[in-house]
Amino acid sequence: MLAQFPPMGWNSWDCYGAAVDEATVRKNADYMAAHLKQFGWEYIVVDIQWYQPTATSHDYVPFAPLCMDEYGRLQPAENRFPSAAGGKGFQPLADYVHSLGLKFGIHIMRGLPRMAAHRQLPILDSPLRCDQAAKGNSICMWNPDMYGLNCETEVNGVLPGKAYYDSIFRMYAQWGVDFVKCDDIAREYPQCEKEIETISEAARNCGRDIVLSLSPGPAPLEKAEHLKRYANMWRITDDFWDDWRALHAMFDRAEKWCIHAGPGHWPDADMLPIGALRQCTNPDDWTHFTIPELTTMMTLWSMMRSPLMIGGELTKMDEESLRLLCNADVLAIQKTTACAHPLYRMESTCVWVAPEVNGSGLYVALFNLTDDPLVISVTADEIQHPISAARELWSGETAEDILISGLPPHGAAVWKVE
Amino acid sequence: MLAQFPPMGWNSWDCYGAAVDEATVRKNADYMAAHLKQFGWEYIVVDIQWYQPTATSHDYVPFAPLCMDEYGRLQPAENRFPSAAGGKGFQPLADYVHSLGLKFGIHIMRGLPRMAAHRQLPILDSPLRCDQAAKGNSICMWNPDMYGLNCETEVNGVLPGKAYYDSIFRMYAQWGVDFVKCDDIAREYPQCEKEIETISEAARNCGRDIVLSLSPGPAPLEKAEHLKRYANMWRITDDFWDDWRALHAMFDRAEKWCIHAGPGHWPDADMLPIGALRQCTNPDDWTHFTIPELTTMMTLWSMMRSPLMIGGELTKMDEESLRLLCNADVLAIQKTTACAHPLYRMESTCVWVAPEVNGSGLYVALFNLTDDPLVISVTADEIQHPISAARELWSGETAEDILISGLPPHGAAVWKVE
Amino acid sequence: MLAQFPPMGWNSWDCYGAAVDEATVRKNADYMAAHLKQFGWEYIVVDIQWYQPTATSHDYVPFAPLCMDEYGRLQPAENRFPSAAGGKGFQPLADYVHSLGLKFGIHIMRGLPRMAAHRQLPILDSPLRCDQAAKGNSICMWNPDMYGLNCETEVNGVLPGKAYYDSIFRMYAQWGVDFVKCDDIAREYPQCEKEIETISEAARNCGRDIVLSLSPGPAPLEKAEHLKRYANMWRITDDFWDDWRALHAMFDRAEKWCIHAGPGHWPDADMLPIGALRQCTNPDDWTHFTIPELTTMMTLWSMMRSPLMIGGELTKMDEESLRLLCNADVLAIQKTTACAHPLYRMESTCVWVAPEVNGSGLYVALFNLTDDPLVISVTADEIQHPISAARELWSGETAEDILISGLPPHGAAVWKVE
Amino acid sequence: MLAQFPPMGWNSWDCYGAAVDEATVRKNADYMAAHLKQFGWEYIVVDIQWYQPTATSHDYVPFAPLCMDEYGRLQPAENRFPSAAGGKGFQPLADYVHSLGLKFGIHIMRGLPRMAAHRQLPILDSPLRCDQAAKGNSICMWNPDMYGLNCETEVNGVLPGKAYYDSIFRMYAQWGVDFVKCDDIAREYPQCEKEIETISEAARNCGRDIVLSLSPGPAPLEKAEHLKRYANMWRITDDFWDDWRALHAMFDRAEKWCIHAGPGHWPDADMLPIGALRQCTNPDDWTHFTIPELTTMMTLWSMMRSPLMIGGELTKMDEESLRLLCNADVLAIQKTTACAHPLYRMESTCVWVAPEVNGSGLYVALFNLTDDPLVISVTADEIQHPISAARELWSGETAEDILISGLPPHGAAVWKVE
Repeated sequence: MLAQFPPMGWNSWDCYGAAVDEATVRKNADYMAAHLKQFGWEYIVVDIQWYQPTATSHDYVPFAPLCMDEYGRLQPAENRFPSAAGGKGFQPLADYVHSLGLKFGIHIMRGLPRMAAHRQLPILDSPLRCDQAAKGNSICMWNPDMYGLNCETEVNGVLPGKAYYDSIFRMYAQWGVDFVKCDDIAREYPQCEKEIETISEAARNCGRDIVLSLSPGPAPLEKAEHLKRYANMWRITDDFWDDWRALHAMFDRAEKWCIHAGPGHWPDADMLPIGALRQCTNPDDWTHFTIPELTTMMTLWSMMRSPLMIGGELTKMDEESLRLLCNADVLAIQKTTACAHPLYRMESTCVWVAPEVNGSGLYVALFNLTDDPLVISVTADEIQHPISAARELWSGETAEDILISGLPPHGAAVWKVE
Repeated sequence: MLAQFPPMGWNSWDCYGAAVDEATVRKNADYMAAHLKQFGWEYIVVDIQWYQPTATSHDYVPFAPLCMDEYGRLQPAENRFPSAAGGKGFQPLADYVHSLGLKFGIHIMRGLPRMAAHRQLPILDSPLRCDQAAKGNSICMWNPDMYGLNCETEVNGVLPGKAYYDSIFRMYAQWGVDFVKCDDIAREYPQCEKEIETISEAARNCGRDIVLSLSPGPAPLEKAEHLKRYANMWRITDDFWDDWRALHAMFDRAEKWCIHAGPGHWPDADMLPIGALRQCTNPDDWTHFTIPELTTMMTLWSMMRSPLMIGGELTKMDEESLRLLCNADVLAIQKTTACAHPLYRMESTCVWVAPEVNGSGLYVALFNLTDDPLVISVTADEIQHPISAARELWSGETAEDILISGLPPHGAAVWKVE
Repeated sequence: MLAQFPPMGWNSWDCYGAAVDEATVRKNADYMAAHLKQFGWEYIVVDIQWYQPTATSHDYVPFAPLCMDEYGRLQPAENRFPSAAGGKGFQPLADYVHSLGLKFGIHIMRGLPRMAAHRQLPILDSPLRCDQAAKGNSICMWNPDMYGLNCETEVNGVLPGKAYYDSIFRMYAQWGVDFVKCDDIAREYPQCEKEIETISEAARNCGRDIVLSLSPGPAPLEKAEHLKRYANMWRITDDFWDDWRALHAMFDRAEKWCIHAGPGHWPDADMLPIGALRQCTNPDDWTHFTIPELTTMMTLWSMMRSPLMIGGELTKMDEESLRLLCNADVLAIQKTTACAHPLYRMESTCVWVAPEVNGSGLYVALFNLTDDPLVISVTADEIQHPISAARELWSGETAEDILISGLPPHGAAVWKVE
Repeated sequence: MLAQFPPMGWNSWDCYGAAVDEATVRKNADYMAAHLKQFGWEYIVVDIQWYQPTATSHDYVPFAPLCMDEYGRLQPAENRFPSAAGGKGFQPLADYVHSLGLKFGIHIMRGLPRMAAHRQLPILDSPLRCDQAAKGNSICMWNPDMYGLNCETEVNGVLPGKAYYDSIFRMYAQWGVDFVKCDDIAREYPQCEKEIETISEAARNCGRDIVLSLSPGPAPLEKAEHLKRYANMWRITDDFWDDWRALHAMFDRAEKWCIHAGPGHWPDADMLPIGALRQCTNPDDWTHFTIPELTTMMTLWSMMRSPLMIGGELTKMDEESLRLLCNADVLAIQKTTACAHPLYRMESTCVWVAPEVNGSGLYVALFNLTDDPLVISVTADEIQHPISAARELWSGETAEDILISGLPPHGAAVWKVE
């Protein structure tokens, strides 16, 4: 089963915006192979606008010409990804990532390039042209690259959107892509419902296992079953950054979505803004989160079984960050539990529980939502589980009766009760 | 802990409306003691308007005089509850129920009798009168008996609502009441938030363990934490009756509330309309649910850990009904699991899972939501749990690999996977 | 036709709240006859709770016993209205008002006294009792006196609400009442739609011309045609007091309602808080409105043809107030125009126009909505009317070309263009 | 003052959709000059997509190449407008229309051609390019031609949208355009508020009097003052066609907007679908409206003072249609009244009144909204105006007391009361 557990990896967006390049990807892949792979981290994902030669930041340049082939399929900008020269696309880079024992992912926008429609380019292996597949009024509100596709009505017996999506996913399969993050789609219900299904079908039929991730959030909760059926992960919030208010707001989202996490389908709380961030515009930038906040983030993402995609530059990680990213006991939660959910969520505190699926252990996470230090305790009665042997996974502390943690502002603890 | 597990019992409403009498209560208690107690059934609850002498059906008589003492406290109508004669209230009946090894519950409306306010009666052990505690604009929209109480603003240093609620709960404790179902309150947020807290406090301080149940639903989901803190159970729907549409609609409610079920606080899917119903107006009436629908109801209520309150006349139960009410394997789900939730809910099918808390077993319930027979199957991958030995709890069927059930229209199965 | 023009009079509420008494009514009537009648002022209206013996302010005493006859019909409290002694009701006071050449009005709450229902009193000239006419869940949210009536469903062939309303309106006719302000009803759509119709019918069939006024506002705009059909005037806002924000907000209301003003049916902007106010609690109190604000109020009410009901104590009126209340040129607007409406309403200024119906004159009102002095001008092109002779009605200023007024903060001018 | 009265003319849309051509325009202009001009009809308006060479119907061809000059300014397709050859644009056609004593109008979409942005064409007399003025996410939902413009933020000290709009309006002035119907804008509040202001400014500054009309509706009522300030007319509904339901729905719109009609600013009820319609796809097509419905339409549009734009092919008008279009007494309403509004609007009937501005006459329109014949009457009391001499303007019938009209289903009458 694809995405049996929540995917773990690195994504270029938080550091490099629309301007990531091949050298950067390679060095992060090298680092992951050397230091993180052993803990389960495996995906290297190239985020948005790898086909735009002049991108330099998190911003988009309206109407900038994009690199594409004669079938309207976007290609890596060779000035940024030299190994793509000669029409090889991402195949050489994917090969390299695979050679490290890792997996390779890319970002796409739903649809086809606007210029491919205006130029009336043909769709590969199809009698139709791009202008017949594009919907002139289906655009992204925050990015000027694409037109969305007609996935509802056949033209001359062919579903135009399917023809185009099949043409690009076959190319991705050929390149060796293992993961596609499709953007401008997860919150575009109901108008993109069929487009999601068509993309999902293209991914499943392309001849290679490709994990399908949908962005941006918030995806609508009432479409949970549709998302579970057609995607492997989907965003539950708008872009998440290193701001306590955003982290605090995630508790509400996590509570609403927790019952929908399971093998093959994962609500996604977005990338982890940890370590060096925003490198394309400020090489000295660092996450604004405190260590307790990062602990809360790692604990919550683990308990709710969100995918884990590191946003920081890997080669600049410090010891503290690595300690948070490589705690095998915490990372085990995602592989061994099911049915996690909040025990309660008050204004000042929140407690989550997650039972082991093939054992009688119980994970109990304690969160301090206030701006002050706080002691939080949980009894056996409350968790409906005897407490004879328990261990806190960040500190190693043990307990034999009641779980008590003194937590710094915005901090967290997570106990394993045997 | 009060209500460590979801309460189980019998309630007079579905059969006797506003017109239940002492003889009926006694015979149902006798039957429960003889046939159901051994399976965990224990509460005998007298529902609405036991203080109204002329009630004969599920309807209310506007402005009918109510039985009350000189402190505006409602008393059982002696023509209906003879043992209450001489000011003894429900004490003799409660004693009888206790003598059978069972527990005794009553229904109340929030507030005090309108006539007690208009007559300006004193509140027992308080310097205030009923007209000082009542809010003239706080009424029930569907029952004409009461005015709600001022639980927000002190009068002469006394909180009037607290004075009155303390006066009645002390009387209930003296009577031997174990369970109070307070009505016209669970969906009355935000205006009754303080009144809920005041009633909860009165129940906790009255000197006797009294389970507090709030009606009617739907209680607002966003008040889950308030309800968990101040009540032992609360209704999540309007009155539930024997109609497939109502049963079908419960799946959505159950999904939204499931994460809030736990020791001491239980979302309540309402009484079980099984067996002989509406006896006050039609002694020949019988539930309109089919056996598969009743199976679905018992399975869903058990998985979601709803309280179980039988609505049918116990002395008329047939073998088939008893089979559904007394399946020890199914009833065990409520005592041994936590964190139940839907695996998925599609238009035609729904699957719930519930892990054992002190073991590695997993309960898996399969529901056919269509009007046709249907075969539903579940794999080990989907439930994230190996399937080597599994047993269906209604039929005894076993499985060793994949869970498959052929289900009649609206039917259900529930497997225990070891 | 009843209420051919917007009614003009005095109402006791702004000065005396629930506590007005006979002496006060008489002296205000005397004053009106002597000083205001010649300008068209004619109604003397006794506002709320004339039947409550202990009222002393604008507040209500919950569950206070009310004066009523053996048919549940409220009667003037004799300690406050001595001439009502001996069951004569308001007849002696009405006679007195009539003797001055004025008209007499009273306030009522929709419904019947709660105690009349609880006591199960008979309805005069009807086989039904009050408890059969009252709806136990139809109450006023801000006053504890009454239950609303069943005007939808017959009981034993009789419409209970009609029986009761007929019984009180026949009594009012006998007393000599010319105007009834019915409260707790104008914004209670849709639940009171039938009750409005029943009251309207009772007023029309009672044997005397009684103007029917509905309160409180805001009445719903989408019910304009229903209101026009069943009432002579209805409130378009909540209670209006001497606060600029309330006066400023009236422009929006006036704009929405203006097309619905016409013979027999008048949108009502509420009483005029001018002069001495709140006398029951503070005999030294005076309107907080400035003279320019009072000018704006009188101008807007006149242009939109709102009923004019003075709220201040008449005997304390000063010269400035009388000048505003007795400008015959301004008061003529209500008798000679139709189709008034705003020409435009910007953030800082507003201009209204009102054409004469039997002539070619045009009234043009200019409003300064800002907190600063402002010069506002209007051209012939804008008003689609030549300007050869124009006169400002408050100042007497004239113009022959363009209308220009220098206005103080919150001030107004109104020109008549011949 | 521009548009002192509601504009009257002919528009090509109802007959020719996106496919109107020069010959058609000329023959309709000829007809208007010969038969309609004398009644006040004067505008000849070329509707949408005169720049698209392949348009043949009311549909749009996505991504079809459009005729434009090197500055991204759309030009008439020469295959459809031969006189535009040689870069002369609409000047020759405008000259011809002017030679007949008529005025010439065109339709535009807000924004600039998408291809002009993608091609990065320069803006005439500006340092900026089209891609710097276009907003990539500002599109029309129903037409694929244009991108909306940045009218909010300066680029290099220049407001890009203003630069482009100035460049096209100067060209229109040079061509001799008298009327511009700007589309995709009137209901696009708030996002197009600044764009409306910029277009309005360009029209006022272009050196020629150009009436500005905004489409499509419904424009938001709460923006009435903004529309009055920046446009001469604006649509109050979506496209209006020959369907009774649409005509019936106009009464509600007319009621809401009536107070906002006045010199220079006119709420627009859309074109008049009378006579031969949809000629581009069906030369035999004819309006589906009955004569009474057309009478209702002409009466309501006249009373509410909507602009009057004929939608039918003029050369095919029959006698009955001409009778409706050329009733001088009815057409006079728009020139001589103000302050029109409904007297009432019930489910079955509606009555409007409109006073003369420089006289004491009153127009009274009676509408039968039912599917059956109906007699409607109006009294002097109701209209607040004596009825001594009155004439019905469609039939010539007279009255001296009460206005009574027997109306066919969906029919209307309009009386002038002297």
